[in-house]
Amino acid sequence: MYNLGHVTVVVVGGTGDLARKYLWQGFFQLYADQVGKGHTFSFYGGGLSPTEKGTPLLFGILKELACPPELSVERCDLVKDQFLHLSKYHQLKTTEDYEKLSQQIKQQLGQEGMVEAGRLFYLSVPAFAYADIAEKINNTCRPPSDAWLRVVLEKPFGHDLYSAQALDKKLSGQLKEEEMYRIDHYLGKQVVSKILPFRKENKKLLDPIWNKHHIERIEIVLKETLDAKGRIQFYDQYGVIRDVLQNHLTEVMTLMLMNLPANLSNSKEILQNKLNFLASLQHVDNSNAVVGQYQAYNEEVQEELNKTKDYFSLTPTFAGVVVHVDNAQYEGIPIFMTSGKALDERVSYARVLFKSDVFCVQDPNNVQCKSKQIIFYLGHGTLQYPAILLSKNLFKPKLASSGDWKEVTEYKDVNMLGLPLSDYYIQSPVTPREAYCELISHVFFGRKDSFISAEGLLASWEFWTPLLEGLSRVFPRVYPGGVANGNLLNFQLQGHQVAFSHEAVVNVIKPGAEDNFQVMQGKYRSSEMVSAWAQELVERLASDLLLAAEEAIHEEGQFHLALSGGSSPVALLRALALNLYTFPWRNTHIWQVDERCVPHTESGSNFRSIHDLLLQHIRIPYFNIHPMPVHLTQRLCVEEDSGPTLYEKEIKKHVNGSSFHYILIGVGQDGHTASLFQDTKLENDEERLVILTESPIKPHQRMSLTFTAINRARRVGVLIMGKSKHELVSQLSRIKGESSKYPITKVQPKSGTLIWYIDYDALLG
Amino acid sequence: MYNLGHVTVVVVGGTGDLARKYLWQGFFQLYADQVGKGHTFSFYGGGLSPTEKGTPLLFGILKELACPPELSVERCDLVKDQFLHLSKYHQLKTTEDYEKLSQQIKQQLGQEGMVEAGRLFYLSVPAFAYADIAEKINNTCRPPSDAWLRVVLEKPFGHDLYSAQALDKKLSGQLKEEEMYRIDHYLGKQVVSKILPFRKENKKLLDPIWNKHHIERIEIVLKETLDAKGRIQFYDQYGVIRDVLQNHLTEVMTLMLMNLPANLSNSKEILQNKLNFLASLQHVDNSNAVVGQYQAYNEEVQEELNKTKDYFSLTPTFAGVVVHVDNAQYEGIPIFMTSGKALDERVSYARVLFKSDVFCVQDPNNVQCKSKQIIFYLGHGTLQYPAILLSKNLFKPKLASSGDWKEVTEYKDVNMLGLPLSDYYIQSPVTPREAYCELISHVFFGRKDSFISAEGLLASWEFWTPLLEGLSRVFPRVYPGGVANGNLLNFQLQGHQVAFSHEAVVNVIKPGAEDNFQVMQGKYRSSEMVSAWAQELVERLASDLLLAAEEAIHEEGQFHLALSGGSSPVALLRALALNLYTFPWRNTHIWQVDERCVPHTESGSNFRSIHDLLLQHIRIPYFNIHPMPVHLTQRLCVEEDSGPTLYEKEIKKHVNGSSFHYILIGVGQDGHTASLFQDTKLENDEERLVILTESPIKPHQRMSLTFTAINRARRVGVLIMGKSKHELVSQLSRIKGESSKYPITKVQPKSGTLIWYIDYDALLG
Repeated sequence: MYNLGHVTVVVVGGTGDLARKYLWQGFFQLYADQVGKGHTFSFYGGGLSPTEKGTPLLFGILKELACPPELSVERCDLVKDQFLHLSKYHQLKTTEDYEKLSQQIKQQLGQEGMVEAGRLFYLSVPAFAYADIAEKINNTCRPPSDAWLRVVLEKPFGHDLYSAQALDKKLSGQLKEEEMYRIDHYLGKQVVSKILPFRKENKKLLDPIWNKHHIERIEIVLKETLDAKGRIQFYDQYGVIRDVLQNHLTEVMTLMLMNLPANLSNSKEILQNKLNFLASLQHVDNSNAVVGQYQAYNEEVQEELNKTKDYFSLTPTFAGVVVHVDNAQYEGIPIFMTSGKALDERVSYARVLFKSDVFCVQDPNNVQCKSKQIIFYLGHGTLQYPAILLSKNLFKPKLASSGDWKEVTEYKDVNMLGLPLSDYYIQSPVTPREAYCELISHVFFGRKDSFISAEGLLASWEFWTPLLEGLSRVFPRVYPGGVANGNLLNFQLQGHQVAFSHEAVVNVIKPGAEDNFQVMQGKYRSSEMVSAWAQELVERLASDLLLAAEEAIHEEGQFHLALSGGSSPVALLRALALNLYTFPWRNTHIWQVDERCVPHTESGSNFRSIHDLLLQHIRIPYFNIHPMPVHLTQRLCVEEDSGPTLYEKEIKKHVNGSSFHYILIGVGQDGHTASLFQDTKLENDEERLVILTESPIKPHQRMSLTFTAINRARRVGVLIMGKSKHELVSQLSRIKGESSKYPITKVQPKSGTLIWYIDYDALLG
Repeated sequence: MYNLGHVTVVVVGGTGDLARKYLWQGFFQLYADQVGKGHTFSFYGGGLSPTEKGTPLLFGILKELACPPELSVERCDLVKDQFLHLSKYHQLKTTEDYEKLSQQIKQQLGQEGMVEAGRLFYLSVPAFAYADIAEKINNTCRPPSDAWLRVVLEKPFGHDLYSAQALDKKLSGQLKEEEMYRIDHYLGKQVVSKILPFRKENKKLLDPIWNKHHIERIEIVLKETLDAKGRIQFYDQYGVIRDVLQNHLTEVMTLMLMNLPANLSNSKEILQNKLNFLASLQHVDNSNAVVGQYQAYNEEVQEELNKTKDYFSLTPTFAGVVVHVDNAQYEGIPIFMTSGKALDERVSYARVLFKSDVFCVQDPNNVQCKSKQIIFYLGHGTLQYPAILLSKNLFKPKLASSGDWKEVTEYKDVNMLGLPLSDYYIQSPVTPREAYCELISHVFFGRKDSFISAEGLLASWEFWTPLLEGLSRVFPRVYPGGVANGNLLNFQLQGHQVAFSHEAVVNVIKPGAEDNFQVMQGKYRSSEMVSAWAQELVERLASDLLLAAEEAIHEEGQFHLALSGGSSPVALLRALALNLYTFPWRNTHIWQVDERCVPHTESGSNFRSIHDLLLQHIRIPYFNIHPMPVHLTQRLCVEEDSGPTLYEKEIKKHVNGSSFHYILIGVGQDGHTASLFQDTKLENDEERLVILTESPIKPHQRMSLTFTAINRARRVGVLIMGKSKHELVSQLSRIKGESSKYPITKVQPKSGTLIWYIDYDALLG
């Protein structure tokens, strides 16, 4: 027989829970599949216990292994005997243990005259041990350079973006990216791994409807009846979003919506398309999520973590999040992600609900007139088996020729998400396979697309981390658990935001001061001030802008709004773009307060950020957009181009008396505003509205409205957010009138109104 | 008693059907309401018959009048006696008859010493008689200048835009606009006249959801079980769109979606807002409609119109139309309008169906999780009475304090559009009133907003006429009539277009050649030619553009498309904007082939038309839009501005080798293309890409790509449509190579491809 070489499998943590339940079964299946096909194998179960304790433990597990269904009993007995014969327990605690293991492998290979094909380490241990074990493997257990090394890891991969980056840094010092196989066991579920092939097989029929014009909503759901009791030690550090949404549900969403790769077996292309998709997700924060905690949870925490009776955990055991994709294909489609413990049923599915495009002149209860949908059903619930379901009014899906999926035509008399089962085409796998079993085979075949790449992992954390940070001070709604939850956890959209649909009747966790989002009004530097927590503040500012716009348009037919760059307006622009439907954009003109001398298409450009955050999302006439002309010839902001003069002319042409209706500015930590800095030379000619300036920070060249222009406005809003501005806010409050040190103090509208919008972080520190 | 003067009512056609059924009852009600309130009355029933024949006819009708429910029997007897006493028959045939009537009124007033308040003429006669009667009234029956004249007219007001304009011209020569009361009896229906007040009363709750983000679809439905038998003489000239959609359903849609007036009793504001709404409707044509004809109809036509057995009427008795509104508030919402005779039930309603914004974690069959809707129910069907229904998961509507509407709380055990009746809040009028009764009272009180204004009428015809013209050669689908129609008439959206959902099994009308929309490919002037009927041709061109875009983006990451002005591309731009969802706009750059030297915001600007038809509907980055710089300083296209040089620079900067991927041009009847005319002096410098030119037609000044630029393109498409181009197409086909007389012949891409897109009208004449 043609010899493909020897493969050594080492399950570190080989006598643990996961190994007992799934891993050894997976390796046994792998062996049964591969025996006689050219590879030889040996298996090690590694553990902290000494050999005499570990060996019986391991063999206790191995003896219980079930026979793969495709083998006859006799054949299975034989294969199992061989498998047990090839398996060994090995203590793996110290570096010496790993060295010994390596020597043992070498010795065995030498004795039997075998060539080494590769070594597979499966780390079934707590995540904190990964770095240490990786180092030991790297230092002692690397196979010869012509054989592969594969190390399988399982979540949690960090706790947020920063810890994931730190872990990645540690691991990548020891192992190459192609050597690491990060498992999300959802990717091994048969329905999940069928999503891309299904989309590909039915591409022709899906293409016309797989977009915002036809999809009404997407739901990605994992409901559990179980609670976290007994696992609080682990669970309370993570909560439902880290446990389920950041990984499993994100992977399912990605597979559903990523660009289809040209080639389904090109791992690189798949991973790249996944990355591109994750990059196109719209920012989510508190306003896009609701969280809950089952009632008994907190007592369990007090008990299992030895906390006192006044300890409250804010860890959510339920979350509902609405995600939006920021691209032309999917924008506006709400993606409802939800998961929770102690709910009314155990079920997991993802579904695409299409807009009804039919008008039924007669008999609207006909199946043709009902909602069209595709369901990726992962299991449990009504159906009890994994399947892909298409409502019959959509189309009949193709069945892959590979023969591993079959059409189901026997219908239980049940309803599935709004339709009787008989109203669906149903496809299901011929043979059910465990996710781990699938994935172990994929590790063996090096199919990297079934695993999480480092980049993909960090991209997902980058997406979820701002929400997780925001939620760290939010009190979850308490729910009784089970069917008693009733409609307490239902939630609904408000623009792109979500909120629970019903008022909570009881909430045993008392909200602290921070939950008390109130808007405060007062005086600051003798002018009006509005203060609130960041999100509330931005909403208030957005609605004040709407009022100003309506007033201006009522009086003059137009609203002239000048926006500045920087980071403060980001949340505001988002709110304007996504949550204020009635903003009269058709009659609004957008101007710039200041601009960096970089091309408008570059990411450092203020215009680019206004464009991407706001303009691309609204329907505003092209003529109403007035970018600062920083780039007229080949070079940027050259004097000869007279960019400022041009912009002045444009302002004078459109804006009545050059008096903007609203100018929104911010303040830098050094007190600068617009692009007017402490040592900006202000022209003697007070009539200049626009000038070129020099910034102390790169890019140095800037174009900016002058104080003359700013102080002519009907309204000037100054938005200041974040703890880093607290010191400045305090200092400014002590200064009366102008100070040459702080350019912002020169903002004193002649006949207009000045309003300060300062968030609590900036105001209170 | 304070005397408000005398009112004379003349019902011309006073013994006809409508007068018998509704009008006299309405005037009796008016009299009963007004008697003793200051006005005195006299009533004339006018007709063609002589007095001795007409008088008994009229009194036969008047004796049968029903008592208004609010009057006691005794009181009614008394009032009815008075009413009969004040009523008289009067022959109205010749001018002398009208003169006599006028004298009689004068005499009576003189005898009784009364001041005249006004004269109300109700023309209950066929529309063809309007102009003649209006002339007679104008010449002989005008009251003194301090009294009012009101003339009530009923549809049909013309047959299409041109006949409506002609009728309007004739009538407005005799009567002032404020003297004409054009009735659409739907506006007198209690639910219809309640739409605006309902929207106003519930404004606060409706405002956030009355937009494209929340409304999923709107349905406006009038289903009849009756057929047209016996009325074919009239009906076959009109058909269902003219009979129902152009007026009744359009009015209902307008009231639902027009901007709310600040003041509900300001007729002027209401009529203006209606006009604005009609102006914002998106163009509809054949592709937005399906039509049907009940099976027996054609035989009825043959019989009633004395036609032979091979005569086929194309008049539709069923229509389904999808209308879209082209403004930011409603864009994208499909408005399904449908009406038909010989359907399965008699019912009329308009409903707003909202997108589900709730995610139900548990029990999705709960009413809270079901579709939210508002139904304006006009009557018949399940409910049998007029009502406004709101699903309870929406909100509880306010009940107007006026007391003429009540809340219904007894629920029949029936389902209404998807929900049991008990899941709705239901409001209904306290006293049912006939539409005519309402409207007669509104004429009396001069409430013009309950009637159709001349402008409103023409605007509605302007909207419907292109569709009616298009349908004049479309064969309606034949349906059996009644419940047997099954799902034969159900129709569905495809983009903004619609089609029947199911293939017709039988169609007794055989489609003619014109129905056979096929695309023909061939050669024209030695280049490739695609020909088809206009709509098919445009779709083909759009899809060819999509292919070219995908190819270019695949190769270079960008697609550079240059578009020209004129009328030919209008349908193409619409198709690109509305029906091609997958067009890769993000990577497409839009350039101009030519431009008129007018500001871009003006309607004559080519850029403005590209902007309004295409750019406002797609998500394309601001940076990818390249308008020709015709307006740099105060004056347009001045040489010193070097607009052409600037545009050349921009082309060279972005377009690889200045070679556009696709240039789309047209041809004028004089053979010009782009803005290159027969006597355009072409610079010696062949390297110029952009020049200023002079057009023989206003505006004379133009900017245009040169033949050098055009002939460098990878692909050039020439789109020629319409019969007016047929002669040119024939001439060009006979010319070989270049001809100085026809600039288009100079379009000869050096290494690119030239394709002619010529519709059958232009090709075949």
